Amino acid sequence: MSTIHTFQTSKRVVLGKGALENLRNQLFPFEGAKRVLIVSSPFLKKNGYIDLIGKQLNDANMEYDVITDIEPEPTIEHIETTFKRINRHPFDLMIGIGGGSVLDVTKLFSVLLKNDVSVKEMTKGKTISNKGVPMILIPTTSGTGSEVTPNSIVTLPDEELKIGIVSPHFLPDLVLLDPTLTVTLPKTITAATGMDAFTHSFESFISNKANPISDMYALESMRLISRSIVNAYENGSDINARQDMLLGSTYGGMALTSAGTAAVHALAYPLGGKFNIAHGEANSMLLPHVTLANLDHIEDRMKTIAREIGLLEKDESARYASELLIDQIVRWTQTLNIPQDLKSYGVKEEDVPALAEAASNVTRLMNNNPKKLSVLDIEKIYRKLL
Amino acid sequence: MSTIHTFQTSKRVVLGKGALENLRNQLFPFEGAKRVLIVSSPFLKKNGYIDLIGKQLNDANMEYDVITDIEPEPTIEHIETTFKRINRHPFDLMIGIGGGSVLDVTKLFSVLLKNDVSVKEMTKGKTISNKGVPMILIPTTSGTGSEVTPNSIVTLPDEELKIGIVSPHFLPDLVLLDPTLTVTLPKTITAATGMDAFTHSFESFISNKANPISDMYALESMRLISRSIVNAYENGSDINARQDMLLGSTYGGMALTSAGTAAVHALAYPLGGKFNIAHGEANSMLLPHVTLANLDHIEDRMKTIAREIGLLEKDESARYASELLIDQIVRWTQTLNIPQDLKSYGVKEEDVPALAEAASNVTRLMNNNPKKLSVLDIEKIYRKLL
Ligand SMILES: NC(=O)c1ccc[n+]([C@@H]2O[C@H](COP(=O)([O-])OP(=O)(O)OC[C@H]3O[C@@H](n4cnc5c(N)ncnc54)[C@H](O)[C@@H]3O)[C@@H](O)[C@H]2O)c1
Ligand SMILES: NC(=O)c1ccc[n+]([C@@H]2O[C@H](COP(=O)([O-])OP(=O)(O)OC[C@H]3O[C@@H](n4cnc5c(N)ncnc54)[C@H](O)[C@@H]3O)[C@@H](O)[C@H]2O)c1
Ligand SMILES: [Fe+2]
Ligand SMILES: [Fe+2]
Repeated sequence: MSTIHTFQTSKRVVLGKGALENLRNQLFPFEGAKRVLIVSSPFLKKNGYIDLIGKQLNDANMEYDVITDIEPEPTIEHIETTFKRINRHPFDLMIGIGGGSVLDVTKLFSVLLKNDVSVKEMTKGKTISNKGVPMILIPTTSGTGSEVTPNSIVTLPDEELKIGIVSPHFLPDLVLLDPTLTVTLPKTITAATGMDAFTHSFESFISNKANPISDMYALESMRLISRSIVNAYENGSDINARQDMLLGSTYGGMALTSAGTAAVHALAYPLGGKFNIAHGEANSMLLPHVTLANLDHIEDRMKTIAREIGLLEKDESARYASELLIDQIVRWTQTLNIPQDLKSYGVKEEDVPALAEAASNVTRLMNNNPKKLSVLDIEKIYRKLL
Repeated sequence: MSTIHTFQTSKRVVLGKGALENLRNQLFPFEGAKRVLIVSSPFLKKNGYIDLIGKQLNDANMEYDVITDIEPEPTIEHIETTFKRINRHPFDLMIGIGGGSVLDVTKLFSVLLKNDVSVKEMTKGKTISNKGVPMILIPTTSGTGSEVTPNSIVTLPDEELKIGIVSPHFLPDLVLLDPTLTVTLPKTITAATGMDAFTHSFESFISNKANPISDMYALESMRLISRSIVNAYENGSDINARQDMLLGSTYGGMALTSAGTAAVHALAYPLGGKFNIAHGEANSMLLPHVTLANLDHIEDRMKTIAREIGLLEKDESARYASELLIDQIVRWTQTLNIPQDLKSYGVKEEDVPALAEAASNVTRLMNNNPKKLSVLDIEKIYRKLL
């Protein structure tokens, strides 16, 4: 294990019910900005949030333009076409408000305005040299943690692939975490994105790159999500549960930025690319089975998680604690009505070898996994879900 | 209690033994910088650390100048005189390496180069409008947390006063936390600065402005410091203990940046200003007594701290847990050989009213205190130490 650990994040985070109404008071670091681009998706316009932001920008003598048609799981083509509409405008501040899809696109727009590199080139690893336009990111889902990660994920539909572009310039200058924005999330998205966030923290905690800093965020994230995921799902307007989920998901992003995710995410990606299975649902299904495969390497860490999320009434063996934790994860999947088999998504036995091959090729993540998993091991895991 | 909480910090933190040797790999966000100013104090030159930094800067094609004569508890005059020596040079990166004194001066130099405001004017509240020169801060004490706070504290000897200047532009772009730099700390400084760091987290946790984000940092900080302060003191070269203290102190800075410190710090300031008592020693002496005065307002929080730092074997009443925690703090003060009375510093009974008056005027901190303390209450606290 390396003894040097890197942690990076947004310089400023504002948390709480009403944080969005309070935006005006948070604009001082951007004094002098004249022209703002708000990037978002349709539901935010409908809910009046764009107007709420716009009014406060005007109060601060800033003009603004709005883009409200960012699509979920954005493709390179969608991003580049949309960018052409704003390319020539001298924006000096960007505000991204929406789910991970919107935030990822905002990050790309920010650097595209200041760098002569196309998104396609970025996906092929070309460096983004210059800092982009300053950014404020405001998540409306509790899942990706994109507001605090240096990543932007784009979809390549022809290749049935998603690619993560990484740059320190993707980190924003300000993050607003306002749980009121998330109360309108439909149940299925609350469930899938919530389990995704839990998986970020879980995998960061067992990752080969886990370290004292990522551990703190990962454990706090798992504490928050464990105590509130069912409440947020069953009673979407429970603002305390929503705040726990939002903060838990941001901490998940902080943890994974430092420690990385591992085999669960590696196995989830091909399911998204080829079968369109929601990323959080794929993670949620895979988590117990990948964990069982890793178990002999992570029992002590499992016990720490079990203790910290309140599963142990008294001291127990690491093995028993691990079983309790795996049971808990399975129980969440059931309570949140996340399917637990791949058949319902049209995956067949004969798809398994190609899936396992693809997962095994996500070496960036497989290298973080505490135990080496062969293609055969991975096939076995997928088969358990058939 | 406000529902909106603000958290701000450095965008990047690198932690671990050897982080300083690894500086070269951390310079990429500063690409293009040509001329670097290293701000430090004499012992760092002697230990070869300045050369270690310089070599890596040269490898990155950066030239550098060095200032090694920053004094502890820097006065306005010292800062302004030293600044005259560098004023005309076009530095585009600053590296501060040293204790809180050096880091605070580095922060001032950074903004002085980009703003037409004197330090004197800053102490009188004049705004620092422009961002300063980019900064890397490298603490060599485990105490102030200055590397992640937006504060810089200057001494006004004539007025027997210290003043804190606050600006978001004081936050650095990179923090290196390398515990090897702290193994040379003398015992008395390990003790005093370590208890200062603990007090930052303790007071942040009971502050009126405490919030979910500051709580996480405060608790983790107290966990780390509790388990390692005695080891770091008794065996200064225990690198794990040193790393716990360093990270614990940085988290303390993060906690207080969001939640603020309270009455202990308010009562400590006049002891520093008028009697030159080391800040950490003053805090350490005051902490049990101020806590007793606050106790009926903070018992539940005390119980949480006691549980999280491992003082409770089983569930206990909040009152009993509070007693255990206060005992622990007193025991640390004894083990670390921190004096427990003010007489040994020359404070006399007749000094008490003026001290209490001065403490009571530190309203910025007294407002964070969970219980309103009258001047009479404060006098009583000082008298307990006589
Ligand atoms: N950058 C990263 O670090 C990172 C990490 C993981 C995933 N991702 C990417 O993020 C994207 C997924 O993001 P997501 O899971 O947040 O979903 P999303 O942004 O795709 O949103 C899903 C749907 O929910 C709607 N929605 C969002 N917030 C809502 C709200 N508050 N109320 C009602 N509807 C709302 C959106 O309009 C959209 O239709 C994918 O492209 C994924 O690859 C990025
Ligand atoms: N900015 C903030 O947020 C903040 C907070 C609290 C205090 N402060 C200020 O910070 C200053 C105190 O800082 P401090 O407590 O870190 O002490 P310090 O920087 O004054 O250093 C104390 C002494 O220890 C020496 N020293 C430092 N590191 C050493 C090492 N590794 N080995 C051997 N000797 C070492 C220094 O050279 C100095 O002589 C005060 O001016 C105080 O007001 C600032
Ligand atoms: Fe994920
Ligand atoms: Fe302090």
